[in-house]
Amino acid sequence: VNSESAEPAEALSRLSLNQATIPGWTVREAAEGSARAGLGWIGLWRDRVAETGLRASAAAVRDAGLGVSSLCRGGWFGAPDRAGLEARMEDNRRAVEEAAALGASCLVLVCGPAPDRDLERGRRVVSEGIAELVPYAAERGVRLAVEPLHPMYCGDRSVVVTLGQALAMAAQAGPGVGVAIDTYHVWWDPEVWAGVAAAAGRIIGFHVNDWLVPTPDMLNGRGLMGDGVIELRRLRRAVDAAGYQGPIEVEIFNRELWSLLPEQALALIAERYLAHVAEPAATSHLPR
Amino acid sequence: VNSESAEPAEALSRLSLNQATIPGWTVREAAEGSARAGLGWIGLWRDRVAETGLRASAAAVRDAGLGVSSLCRGGWFGAPDRAGLEARMEDNRRAVEEAAALGASCLVLVCGPAPDRDLERGRRVVSEGIAELVPYAAERGVRLAVEPLHPMYCGDRSVVVTLGQALAMAAQAGPGVGVAIDTYHVWWDPEVWAGVAAAAGRIIGFHVNDWLVPTPDMLNGRGLMGDGVIELRRLRRAVDAAGYQGPIEVEIFNRELWSLLPEQALALIAERYLAHVAEPAATSHLPR
Repeated sequence: VNSESAEPAEALSRLSLNQATIPGWTVREAAEGSARAGLGWIGLWRDRVAETGLRASAAAVRDAGLGVSSLCRGGWFGAPDRAGLEARMEDNRRAVEEAAALGASCLVLVCGPAPDRDLERGRRVVSEGIAELVPYAAERGVRLAVEPLHPMYCGDRSVVVTLGQALAMAAQAGPGVGVAIDTYHVWWDPEVWAGVAAAAGRIIGFHVNDWLVPTPDMLNGRGLMGDGVIELRRLRRAVDAAGYQGPIEVEIFNRELWSLLPEQALALIAERYLAHVAEPAATSHLPR
Repeated sequence: VNSESAEPAEALSRLSLNQATIPGWTVREAAEGSARAGLGWIGLWRDRVAETGLRASAAAVRDAGLGVSSLCRGGWFGAPDRAGLEARMEDNRRAVEEAAALGASCLVLVCGPAPDRDLERGRRVVSEGIAELVPYAAERGVRLAVEPLHPMYCGDRSVVVTLGQALAMAAQAGPGVGVAIDTYHVWWDPEVWAGVAAAAGRIIGFHVNDWLVPTPDMLNGRGLMGDGVIELRRLRRAVDAAGYQGPIEVEIFNRELWSLLPEQALALIAERYLAHVAEPAATSHLPR
């Protein structure tokens, strides 16, 4: 055993590939590719799971020896009327069942958008939707993750835009609900360090990627770790210090990354994870 | 006198055209066009003032009978080194002198960006820059406006991204420093209503425009009032309730609006201001 640095397999054991990062792979391909590269986890999307089939997806992940760090996504509580909301809730119950079948660490919720201009009403609708979903999820052993999204998504996706808000909402909802912290969504917040510390015991997901300057696209312009301005390692250390020991998911929507060959993209992701997120391997014992 | 609704001239007396909204007009054309349309104010940009000349600009605005709601802009404290920062501070002193010569209600500061990934250091640099500028501005009777920008500009423009932060910074800097509240930058914030109330006595600028869904461009995709999702009238009422009685500036960077003829653009702005921002004219006494 090389004592100077962690073995690759160990070094990447917390790393999770969110499959939206490499859409060229099916669930099975992503699971096998991730396992080959030494990753310990995978993050799945419902549409891709449906394409492969729920049972086949669960088997593929199990065969590869991976854990499922998250299932994306439930939520979308902002319907124009009660019938619309009921349809969303029905879909959310399906999402819970899928998360249970996959053994996912959590089901990520998109907490919005508001049905009209009234954000406060929109937030109440989200809280009520979560409250309604909690017992159904608890019975199936599924944890729900409130993920604050960047304020630039407040108009069309999420009325929960700060970690503080997400925490308050999760705390109100009870023990089956936690927060997912994505560096892209929270890095700008002057309260982020206090927020991460306050989230101790409630963090059930941690996602890394980077904020590019300039940002090429509001939806599909996220950066690979190290290409942007986020203090990624500092945030990862803060999340660890808050007691989180779970998977670290790489979720990047980026057209350039999507244009690479899947293996090439994953190798780059692993390299950047080691360079910018993971604790640097001890160098004091390296041969000179 | 028509008692049912305000005269146009009175109805638009608080309205200010930020000249970046209609870049086809020179300072003199913008001043004359605004006065013709019944506006009481104008917001100026330093590059356009330089193009017309400082004295000629001041004369044009005076001749038109307008007040200058703001001069855009100073700040930009995020320099890579001390020499760079000193050049910025020198430029900021010129901006203060120009604001004084124009009789501007305030000089708007862009409070950033951070010189590197460390946002906390970036915020300290901004606070120190403002503190250094305060006496120079006070001697010339110029108020400095800390304007929080939307968090999507945190990487390249402003480390001040919430009204709460801006207020704390202004309060620390003393009586010559206030905040400028732009609906586009603050509407998403769950703390915005508390923040506006807390800003009582420190609001020295109020800007309106709208958040489009989807947003066509991160820089030049702001919406005309009424085309987006911001509760504009509610925000204007909150700002009024906090004691602000000054100009209401329309600052819209939008390629579609820029493609209109200037008079056409200004007529549309006035119409939307009355429809979505100003207090509706009393209708109870309207003839049936």
